[in-house]
Amino acid sequence: MIYLDNAATTYPKPEAVYQAMDQCMREYNANPGRSGHKMALVSGRSIYNTRDLLCRLFHIDNPMQIIFTHNATDSLNLALKGLLKPGDHVVTTSMEHNSMMRPIMALEELGIENTVVQCDTTGSLNPKQIEAALRPNTKLIAMTHASNVVGTLMPIAEVGAIAKQSNVLLLVDAAQTAGIYPIDVQRMNIDLLAAPGHKGLMGPQGTGILYIREGITLKHMKEGGTGSKSEFLTQPEILPDRYESGTPNTPGIVGLGAGVAYILEEGIEKIRTHEEELTKYFLKELEKIEGIRIYGPKDHRKQAAVISINLGEEDSSEVSYVLDQVFDIAVRSGLHCAPMAHKTIGTFEQGTIRFSIGYFNTREDIDKAVDALTRIKEELEV
Amino acid sequence: MIYLDNAATTYPKPEAVYQAMDQCMREYNANPGRSGHKMALVSGRSIYNTRDLLCRLFHIDNPMQIIFTHNATDSLNLALKGLLKPGDHVVTTSMEHNSMMRPIMALEELGIENTVVQCDTTGSLNPKQIEAALRPNTKLIAMTHASNVVGTLMPIAEVGAIAKQSNVLLLVDAAQTAGIYPIDVQRMNIDLLAAPGHKGLMGPQGTGILYIREGITLKHMKEGGTGSKSEFLTQPEILPDRYESGTPNTPGIVGLGAGVAYILEEGIEKIRTHEEELTKYFLKELEKIEGIRIYGPKDHRKQAAVISINLGEEDSSEVSYVLDQVFDIAVRSGLHCAPMAHKTIGTFEQGTIRFSIGYFNTREDIDKAVDALTRIKEELEV
Repeated sequence: MIYLDNAATTYPKPEAVYQAMDQCMREYNANPGRSGHKMALVSGRSIYNTRDLLCRLFHIDNPMQIIFTHNATDSLNLALKGLLKPGDHVVTTSMEHNSMMRPIMALEELGIENTVVQCDTTGSLNPKQIEAALRPNTKLIAMTHASNVVGTLMPIAEVGAIAKQSNVLLLVDAAQTAGIYPIDVQRMNIDLLAAPGHKGLMGPQGTGILYIREGITLKHMKEGGTGSKSEFLTQPEILPDRYESGTPNTPGIVGLGAGVAYILEEGIEKIRTHEEELTKYFLKELEKIEGIRIYGPKDHRKQAAVISINLGEEDSSEVSYVLDQVFDIAVRSGLHCAPMAHKTIGTFEQGTIRFSIGYFNTREDIDKAVDALTRIKEELEV
Repeated sequence: MIYLDNAATTYPKPEAVYQAMDQCMREYNANPGRSGHKMALVSGRSIYNTRDLLCRLFHIDNPMQIIFTHNATDSLNLALKGLLKPGDHVVTTSMEHNSMMRPIMALEELGIENTVVQCDTTGSLNPKQIEAALRPNTKLIAMTHASNVVGTLMPIAEVGAIAKQSNVLLLVDAAQTAGIYPIDVQRMNIDLLAAPGHKGLMGPQGTGILYIREGITLKHMKEGGTGSKSEFLTQPEILPDRYESGTPNTPGIVGLGAGVAYILEEGIEKIRTHEEELTKYFLKELEKIEGIRIYGPKDHRKQAAVISINLGEEDSSEVSYVLDQVFDIAVRSGLHCAPMAHKTIGTFEQGTIRFSIGYFNTREDIDKAVDALTRIKEELEV
């Protein structure tokens, strides 16, 4: 199996991730932060360790400002619904995933206005358009760091500067970039950073994070046991407890920690360079297939390792099915939970075939994918 | 280490749980329900398999009525906030965990009324009091199946009959009973059933379930990618997608499935009988320690395998600390996230030392715990 679906979930994980999770489950996975016995304390410390590693990765000063969630969708819902109040205005882009777009649309019913800034047909955003969309009641700019459909990288630092200057907060969805592209929440003026644990951060599914800049208070979405201030029937104010109710996913968070430790050891530049080189090579080879449509920037410097294509007018699902069944190549077809992005690039009806490259892919994987597409194209023409 | 903190998280898990999770992570953990390739389909089927096993355990007809959540707190928040609207009234008990009590208190601010029915000093509930608390605007009875502080079993079947007769819905928190006590949602008239995966169900942390009876529609708490109806910017109506946004915790759900399969194979009677026998034995031996205070029903037929005690006026945390440090026995002290339950049994100031027994505990574990308590008591008297 050649796995080219890393934009959904990275696979495989570093060996250390498997081992850390299994060791947690077998040896010490009591309830962290509740009981005071040795095993519970080891569980608690292992969670703190992951917070600490994430701080190093994203240049966050205070580990308690990192909230562990169920996935990036959970993080984005908490950020958007916790922050925005009726009468507020939020600016977003036409390249967003449904995890951003659906909550923003649901908030319309509560009287929270939005402006969706249109990106060009490669998914690129002109930051000036963000600036132009700001209104006196704009509270938040909420946008992705890179498109999950075509990989287009967004000018987050520029938008961050605009946000800061305009006294507007910035929420970034780093689902396609965390662990691969440098993210410095301080330098980039990111106030809220959402990311899944199971993609570039190389952790398991069932984990997500939300960084909340100190001084920002969100409404909590859930109340429950926190192991702190148990005598009160109200949610405690301290972080992370305010936003982390109930037993956390300790083995998952431990696996995430092992993933982030691996990234810090390899170095983010090495990871990104590898993915960029494969993207560059893949794009070059794809161009040789006659009749292929390649979407997005078609430039490894302007896109994450996510490449969407179509073979002429062929149904994207059928081509993906053949890639899987005949060539044992795993990709994703369809709309990738981002309908507006497909409208933006012109593929709302057809969808796209998405190849997404991970750190463990090789040039040989790319060769096999190109070879398979070439053969499918030839078959179609017979 | 003698682990007697199973009411927080059961430990250890059946070997099959460790193996199933590791195999999932290493061999097939792509994104379920999104992509269509072989690995994604195996992931998707493995999640369905867990739904199916849970249906057998709880006598649920339609696996799609089971929602996977982050933990029982997440399940209870979804049930309470998804169901109750301003002007509604909810009836609960004084023995609830903060995962039930804090959301109910938070809902007060939205104009949702509540009545907290007082239990007696053993934590026991007279179901007639539930009936007496019903009002014309009562929408829901929301209560635990067994106290997490003293184990007191609640008369759920009787309350279910009252609820059905009164046309009121019943939400049950089965955190201390699922996987150990028989729960038949049809026979017991349970409309909404919340449970964590990591306690009696023997799965890992990071998993929880909410069963929603067919015909009940909750407001969704989160919107996001579901892999279904991706072309729409609104949340899909179909279950479980409506309530399951974002990538699920596949390895966790697979581990939960292995836990439930183990329970079904062992047989719930065998598990419960083992825990009852140890509880009976523990209670009998504890009575021999002079000056000990034992809370709750003190009857293994009336309580889950959760035993709360104090040694005279001694600080519960200090005794727990000595149990851990000197005797290598893991228990929990304090309020156990249930302040009203402690007010009910009279231990709000002192807290309690909680011993909670699991299926893998032995009579020898109990002997060592009793011996340790006896020696601590002797030390204290010197």
